[in-house]
Amino acid sequence: MTTAHPLSPSPRTTATRSRHRMQVGPEGRAALLRLLAEAPVAHLGVVVGGEGEPSDQHPVVLPVAFAVDPEGPDAGGSLYVHASVAAGWLGAAAGATVCVTVTELDGLVLARSGFHHSVNYRCAVVIGTARAVTREAERAHALDLTVDHVVPGRAATLRAPTRRELAATALLAVPLAEASLKTRTGGPVDEPEDVAAGGWAGTVPLRRVAGQVETAPDAAGPVPDDVVAHVERLGARVAEQAG
Amino acid sequence: MTTAHPLSPSPRTTATRSRHRMQVGPEGRAALLRLLAEAPVAHLGVVVGGEGEPSDQHPVVLPVAFAVDPEGPDAGGSLYVHASVAAGWLGAAAGATVCVTVTELDGLVLARSGFHHSVNYRCAVVIGTARAVTREAERAHALDLTVDHVVPGRAATLRAPTRRELAATALLAVPLAEASLKTRTGGPVDEPEDVAAGGWAGTVPLRRVAGQVETAPDAAGPVPDDVVAHVERLGARVAEQAG
Repeated sequence: MTTAHPLSPSPRTTATRSRHRMQVGPEGRAALLRLLAEAPVAHLGVVVGGEGEPSDQHPVVLPVAFAVDPEGPDAGGSLYVHASVAAGWLGAAAGATVCVTVTELDGLVLARSGFHHSVNYRCAVVIGTARAVTREAERAHALDLTVDHVVPGRAATLRAPTRRELAATALLAVPLAEASLKTRTGGPVDEPEDVAAGGWAGTVPLRRVAGQVETAPDAAGPVPDDVVAHVERLGARVAEQAG
Repeated sequence: MTTAHPLSPSPRTTATRSRHRMQVGPEGRAALLRLLAEAPVAHLGVVVGGEGEPSDQHPVVLPVAFAVDPEGPDAGGSLYVHASVAAGWLGAAAGATVCVTVTELDGLVLARSGFHHSVNYRCAVVIGTARAVTREAERAHALDLTVDHVVPGRAATLRAPTRRELAATALLAVPLAEASLKTRTGGPVDEPEDVAAGGWAGTVPLRRVAGQVETAPDAAGPVPDDVVAHVERLGARVAEQAG
């Protein structure tokens, strides 16, 4: 994991409040890359519309598959976003400034007042110009990274994409240069008078877990090692379920 | 749960691909409201910048606390977004078109080819003009809904917000009129030749679970009933942990 690009948020990615929750420097960069490796989906924001009137422009936010290459060709490394060439927002995204946000929720923070209710989370915000990835070798590499992002090691166990599949797949690269990481951990921070009043407060930790792997009806076991290892990391037992 | 506003996606919220995954009509509306009730956070997209040059405009996507009132005063009901008055994006959002996207991930779909890898998910996209909520009674109602969205029933167990807290809290309302729900369920859909080749394929179900409730060090048990009930719905055992 590279720390060659310490996390140096720009004004666009600097929180206007709760700045103490922003993580910066080489440790921030390492934590950002850990979050991006762990989170299964990102939310991509694109400005669409306005072909007629600029006032028709509006943002669209959609969940996308993604992957990261910290050593990719873009400044600070490359965040690859995967899309169908038929996606309506694709034309508006390529060459434009986009925002890729990755949030993992770690807990509910239940304070003694509504005002101090919060959530524990890690949130990465990456803002940059989306580059359409066209070079064949980079596309193949980015597609492998996208599959490995779902289950580490899985790409190497699959056949190569066909020409038709490649033609149907769009890939955008966003530089990891302008990125921020904001994190909240810990319990509620209540007003002293609310603490003195003696009410309950606490935290409910949340995490994502995998259930039992379901082998497809037209497939047979065993569940591949990479899938078993990934599911075990997600904290679930794996039972084979031949189709 | 109202079905007075069957889900009628506009061109802005209609998927340009995989339209078979879109849910419409009264059942779609009910499923949309279930997702919005269940998901703890939304991702809000706002167009910011461009005060100098329109070309400086770019989208920002941030996780936000939210709540829904299907009977709220906006067309189709109200989706309330909660923010600090210090949030940098707030000025750009009030009165502008925003996009609120809520995604819950339900599983990893592991096909025999990289191309057919997918995820099972439910995703609501709401696009509309954000209205700053200023009327005192509506603000109080929306704040209660926001707390109850974290733990149902909790707002009634807390003291009322102070004038200072209310002044520090911004609330936006987005109409639930222009909304879509896209859902993927089921196993991988592979090419016949890949099925014939005999490789493994399957699904890894994912869900969010709560861990053991952590009572704050400066608080004492018991954990309130509403918290216990909510955590049990999230599939975890609750053990009291007096501070």
